[in-house]
Amino acid sequence: MNTTATSISRTTRAAARGHSREQILKSGRELIAGRGFNATGLDAILKAAGVPKGSFYHYFASKEDFGLAVIDDFAQQYAEHLNGFLSDKTLAPLERVRRFMESGIESLGSCQCARGCLLGDLGQELAAQNESFRVRIDRVFQSWKRKFADCFEEARAAGDLHVHSDPDKLAEFFLAGWEGALLRAKVAKSVQPLKDFTELFFAGVLKP
Amino acid sequence: MNTTATSISRTTRAAARGHSREQILKSGRELIAGRGFNATGLDAILKAAGVPKGSFYHYFASKEDFGLAVIDDFAQQYAEHLNGFLSDKTLAPLERVRRFMESGIESLGSCQCARGCLLGDLGQELAAQNESFRVRIDRVFQSWKRKFADCFEEARAAGDLHVHSDPDKLAEFFLAGWEGALLRAKVAKSVQPLKDFTELFFAGVLKP
Repeated sequence: MNTTATSISRTTRAAARGHSREQILKSGRELIAGRGFNATGLDAILKAAGVPKGSFYHYFASKEDFGLAVIDDFAQQYAEHLNGFLSDKTLAPLERVRRFMESGIESLGSCQCARGCLLGDLGQELAAQNESFRVRIDRVFQSWKRKFADCFEEARAAGDLHVHSDPDKLAEFFLAGWEGALLRAKVAKSVQPLKDFTELFFAGVLKP
Repeated sequence: MNTTATSISRTTRAAARGHSREQILKSGRELIAGRGFNATGLDAILKAAGVPKGSFYHYFASKEDFGLAVIDDFAQQYAEHLNGFLSDKTLAPLERVRRFMESGIESLGSCQCARGCLLGDLGQELAAQNESFRVRIDRVFQSWKRKFADCFEEARAAGDLHVHSDPDKLAEFFLAGWEGALLRAKVAKSVQPLKDFTELFFAGVLKP
């Protein structure tokens, strides 16, 4: 009984902890996406998450450690989002890329282009300031790049891309262009830059 | 004599003021480029510029007003930089664009990719937070876009681009892609994304 009680108590505490960590990450991500990492104070994060400072330091050694966890958490969720599009074998590889872009345009449009890409924002802000952040963000970008490169490789094998196309370079080009188009959309408060990028990317860069 | 003295005194004061304004803008831009706008405190700007608070408020009504002046100042200087490449009639239009890109790659390489584009940084940070900043940054991006569109239009007229090319869309595509490649270069700490973008932009997008 005692063992069971202890076990339940542990489970409950663990669940509570799990919930709090998630909660802190979620609230923190919102704040960081809105204000940037440097301008987001620890107090604001705690207030938004509704947790005391002790809980924060239970999960994160420092604000930097927390920022890196926000990146990991976002990367994990976004990988699933990307796989939903790029691993959809019912569609031709380039059609998967197009659907991903169309979904991005829709998503930006629905928030009046107020939110771009968290990794783009943090990369812009922190890459030159903090090597841990730079390396972590680059690792995520590289993982996205690989997913697109695999898709372009599949397209090439299927004869949908020129045989001399370089899937890796195409993926780097796509990633840069898409991140830049997200920035332009945010600044122009319009999805037009994303539409222009999509149109020319397919008509100019990806034509067989 | 009195008139002359007064006149000299005015000139000196004006010169001193002019110098200080420039100095505050220059130091402020350095700090903002390094840390972001939100994370750059007024005290740090004053300290870096070596001016008292009174001088700051003599030139700028607020920190926002100062931020907008930094953008204007940068835009003016960058317009000259761009014109140096894009108005060089001794070169074919697309060669001017290529030289601009090569110069950017060299410049990023020489600072280990620590600095990207100030407008890209501020756009990413502030576009969704502050409408005055968003509008001002977009205006500058639009002016850059027009310069590239004019150059692409010239290239089309010279038969160096497909007759159906849309100079405006090409310019938007270029601007997005280049800004994104600058971000990628910063995060990857490598000029390779800029090189990849340049190669594919010329081979894929700009081919006649």
